[in-house]
Amino acid sequence: MVELPKSIKNLIAAFERLPGIGPKSASRLVFYLLNTPESYVAEMAKSLLAIKKEVKICKECFSVCEGEICSICEDEKRNKKIICVVERAIDVMAIENIGGYKGVYHVLGGVVNPLEHVSPDDLKIDELINRIEDNMEIILATNPTMEGEATALYIKKKIENLGKKNIKISRIGSGLPMGADLEYADQATLSRAMDGRREI
Amino acid sequence: MVELPKSIKNLIAAFERLPGIGPKSASRLVFYLLNTPESYVAEMAKSLLAIKKEVKICKECFSVCEGEICSICEDEKRNKKIICVVERAIDVMAIENIGGYKGVYHVLGGVVNPLEHVSPDDLKIDELINRIEDNMEIILATNPTMEGEATALYIKKKIENLGKKNIKISRIGSGLPMGADLEYADQATLSRAMDGRREI
Repeated sequence: MVELPKSIKNLIAAFERLPGIGPKSASRLVFYLLNTPESYVAEMAKSLLAIKKEVKICKECFSVCEGEICSICEDEKRNKKIICVVERAIDVMAIENIGGYKGVYHVLGGVVNPLEHVSPDDLKIDELINRIEDNMEIILATNPTMEGEATALYIKKKIENLGKKNIKISRIGSGLPMGADLEYADQATLSRAMDGRREI
Repeated sequence: MVELPKSIKNLIAAFERLPGIGPKSASRLVFYLLNTPESYVAEMAKSLLAIKKEVKICKECFSVCEGEICSICEDEKRNKKIICVVERAIDVMAIENIGGYKGVYHVLGGVVNPLEHVSPDDLKIDELINRIEDNMEIILATNPTMEGEATALYIKKKIENLGKKNIKISRIGSGLPMGADLEYADQATLSRAMDGRREI
């Protein structure tokens, strides 16, 4: 078997560590890059280093930003009494993209997952608790997975134990995604869709 | 809509230009990298720059290598009388991985594709013709696509016009891939499989 040049092997190994990229895709990407202009590859290398240097974590909501505080937390038009709790900064972008949400966010940095040794202390849960005042709405928007549900439940109890007045805690709706087919939906999703039915 | 930090946007744009990576995957990869140790990202940036600096093209077969001549062309045990003609260097790796081939290679650098303005002059076809001597076997292993077939046919004619003695030109077999299902095979593949039937 032929040996690939070491620099190619190194880059394939680096790409393979990315989520969703296996050995075949990794080598396809690397061989693609071999045929691109050097300027593009240099630009990519520069951007890679830049994200680590320039991207900061917002002190308020723990999303990504370039300064101390992210543009959402800084925005005075945002309703600071509504906090949407998400797992990761990328989830903030997903909700922002739909365009209607006017509150602020709180990024946990993951979910409680005993199998991967992630305990509540590893997440920004205490920081969320510190942000909670009277008359607030908390939307728990962790993913509808086992871990996401458990984390949402854990946070709900913690907030309730705080004893603040007039706190509304909600969980994002789950059920059939738009365009789905009842016939092919799994039982858990269908059962959620039935439980979450609304009058029309 | 919220603005992502500029460095994140730049890196997403860089990833999006890779084949098979859309806007969603690109941002997923970038947000994944944000959570990885800086050393890994630095290593990746270094490897990116390294492939452009260290990887050279073999003067003989135009595959990738670190010196002047690749390890396959240098290998004295390889039969220089059998040349397998492929589109890209990655195809060399694919054939090497099966392990049985003992000849050498010739990397064209693409296929003739008028729609993308790739003419025979843009490929290493003249260089292949220069390598051809009497008593050789040429295996045309361009992809079984419209362009790959046309390129193989073009090369076949060029070689025949050379007037060398005892030249055997073959095309890699095409038909049903292993594990496939006749019912789901497309017509072109099935017709190839019938034409390419062999006595057992």
